[in-house]
Amino acid sequence: MTINIKNFLLSQNKKSKIGDFQDLDHIDGVAISAISANLYKEPRDDLVLFYFRDGANFASVYTQSKVISENIKWNLSLKKNSVKALLVNTRNANCFTGKTGHNGIVQIAEELSKKLSIKMLEDEEEKKTVKSDEILFGSTGTIGEKFPTEKIKNSIPDLINKIKYTQNKYLWMKSALGIMTTDLQPKLAMEECKISSSEVKIYGIAKGSGMIFPNMATTLGYIFTDADISSSILKKLLKKNIETTFNAITCDGDTSTNDMVSIFATRKVKNPKIKNINDNKLKDFDKALHSVLLNLAKRVAADGEGASKFISVNVINAKNILDAKKVAFSIANSPLVKTAIAGQDPNWGRIIMAVGKSKVELNLNKLAINFGDIKVIEKGQLSSTYREIEVAEYMKEVKIDLTINLNNGNKDFTAYTMDLTKKYIEINSDYRS
Amino acid sequence: MTINIKNFLLSQNKKSKIGDFQDLDHIDGVAISAISANLYKEPRDDLVLFYFRDGANFASVYTQSKVISENIKWNLSLKKNSVKALLVNTRNANCFTGKTGHNGIVQIAEELSKKLSIKMLEDEEEKKTVKSDEILFGSTGTIGEKFPTEKIKNSIPDLINKIKYTQNKYLWMKSALGIMTTDLQPKLAMEECKISSSEVKIYGIAKGSGMIFPNMATTLGYIFTDADISSSILKKLLKKNIETTFNAITCDGDTSTNDMVSIFATRKVKNPKIKNINDNKLKDFDKALHSVLLNLAKRVAADGEGASKFISVNVINAKNILDAKKVAFSIANSPLVKTAIAGQDPNWGRIIMAVGKSKVELNLNKLAINFGDIKVIEKGQLSSTYREIEVAEYMKEVKIDLTINLNNGNKDFTAYTMDLTKKYIEINSDYRS
Repeated sequence: MTINIKNFLLSQNKKSKIGDFQDLDHIDGVAISAISANLYKEPRDDLVLFYFRDGANFASVYTQSKVISENIKWNLSLKKNSVKALLVNTRNANCFTGKTGHNGIVQIAEELSKKLSIKMLEDEEEKKTVKSDEILFGSTGTIGEKFPTEKIKNSIPDLINKIKYTQNKYLWMKSALGIMTTDLQPKLAMEECKISSSEVKIYGIAKGSGMIFPNMATTLGYIFTDADISSSILKKLLKKNIETTFNAITCDGDTSTNDMVSIFATRKVKNPKIKNINDNKLKDFDKALHSVLLNLAKRVAADGEGASKFISVNVINAKNILDAKKVAFSIANSPLVKTAIAGQDPNWGRIIMAVGKSKVELNLNKLAINFGDIKVIEKGQLSSTYREIEVAEYMKEVKIDLTINLNNGNKDFTAYTMDLTKKYIEINSDYRS
Repeated sequence: MTINIKNFLLSQNKKSKIGDFQDLDHIDGVAISAISANLYKEPRDDLVLFYFRDGANFASVYTQSKVISENIKWNLSLKKNSVKALLVNTRNANCFTGKTGHNGIVQIAEELSKKLSIKMLEDEEEKKTVKSDEILFGSTGTIGEKFPTEKIKNSIPDLINKIKYTQNKYLWMKSALGIMTTDLQPKLAMEECKISSSEVKIYGIAKGSGMIFPNMATTLGYIFTDADISSSILKKLLKKNIETTFNAITCDGDTSTNDMVSIFATRKVKNPKIKNINDNKLKDFDKALHSVLLNLAKRVAADGEGASKFISVNVINAKNILDAKKVAFSIANSPLVKTAIAGQDPNWGRIIMAVGKSKVELNLNKLAINFGDIKVIEKGQLSSTYREIEVAEYMKEVKIDLTINLNNGNKDFTAYTMDLTKKYIEINSDYRS
């Protein structure tokens, strides 16, 4: 069955580990269509189109993996700074699909550009067209399975037919649900901010660690703004803010072939021109963008497969950012730390193990560790105020904050992750039949 | 209850994933005592002494962690090339125990040296003594708990009283059981070989990935030979052979504060002097030592917590060893690969994901992957002979061999690991009470 959005919203208490859902409304210059192309056995929305009739400046960051999917290769080959559409399919990653997978994209891009151009004519926007190389693709799902080119191509009329130029919270929710794989929760976030005196919006949706059929945990994140910002500034903003948001989350240390985060600016708000990323007028937007990305990234981590807890690993006062990152990810990726947290065990010994194995040079006598506000290690020793019963009580919380103070510098980094539960094993060791 | 070795052996079918136990016999110059110092609630052997009355040349390799236990610090501070004893305790890692932990070792070393020196007198070896700095320590268990100095000190008379100068398979088994934590199987291995025409023995015991009470998966390995080899040659032999044996296994990517592998040569066999590690006379010994280390390392991986399968990841024809290692460990440490194998799922997509995330430069069109003898990927594509049902059948085996042919060089590396099961989570998320 296709998901009934209103019922879904009613059935949810709207609570997640990260907090309530925000209600996204309308953003000028974005049109959305989400349909089922029957990519799953049980029909559900699996094909989502974001259509920018008047174009959108854009920038993307992609997976660092050396094996990348055909859609990512396609996106990387595009030369334009502006696009007209983003098409996202689930169920099939279009990875390790060779020439057939590539040809699938070529065919779908041609068909979509043709049909969208016809629609423009019908809408009496005679001079406009959508070219193949103005379409971006997002894919998530199985690796190595034949890409369902025909099914997607055949769904394009229906997809175009259902394009809506005015969004509301239901439509955004529908699009967020449409790009999910085994995520339990849709991921949405928004901020409103100013560029000079112009009010602009930043909306975002994401999907996280879900495996489908055979395969893997792809992260997709799509950000939309009505601001007028050039693609080169968007690129810099995205690169800068991704480091402490989507690149600060880890579920199991594995990296997908299809990871993709993009930002689209529809230029509908006529804010003053921004020529430089350090432009003071951009400060508020920069902060708001970070907030949307962080909000989405946290939701991805919190909804990591089998997660019962959301964990923040704050490494503070490191000599440099790289050290702080190494320690934070060594802890956030440690199965021993993550199983202990699943067991609500204040097992600080495992955190010390993970600090040690990060191989970062440190002075153990300066090390301090807090669980929440509770001091556990001070000056490299068990705190004199440490009472296990108190920390054990804290471990029952759904949000766990670990703070590791290296006390040998002034650089900080926070990694976000979730605990490692039996449910994770269950989900991931389940044979794909 | 103290483990009854004969009953243990009878109760075992002597089968493991790696093959039958070998029966270790006697090795000249080694004496053993294994007792309970009541370090556990339920008494079991937890203190094992290896005593070299006439000294033994030795070499050790230790954990690469930046947080190391007090016993490792002690061992690293020793200046001599020859030792008289190795004392191994379980239940307490003596890590993050500060001055108290260090003083504990000092006191135990003094007491043990005194009592062993008295024993030498009694044995009418009047000129000999055991000095504090001729004693090595191995510890495994809880991090950050007070080290049980008194209990161990008070057990020294009993420990010395039970020293046996002649070993047999029961005594070796008792010592291997005595250093275990939550290992399910003791780990023993042996080889006999020749240095020139002199027949020498190489015996070894190990313990692996077991957590106790709070904490962690320490690997200990102790090798004994009656050969006459200098400590500097032993050091080179150990460093060289550890890379493809103990350093080729991974359970969960975590690294202990207490890892330690040592080799002891009692010099009881008067083989020709070896001055150079490339000496032809050493070839057979070198090979036998590798075999003992590999045998033990495989047993450690096969007995990894919750393991239901033993996995070999063979990366072949890499540009260089580092590339081969990166790819092998990227696969062997991937939770997604390991859960798929636990689920007996021939999920080659996840292996490709792990190859990709290793970030090793490769030509995907040359990639070949075999599951056992079955070709799955050839020239970067699903093999034309691939039949999932056949590979699914293979996945039911207890030993899984994955071969990843990068086809861009001539360097190979094999990593050994186990699958990731619910049992792992169960063991590691169990609160320590």
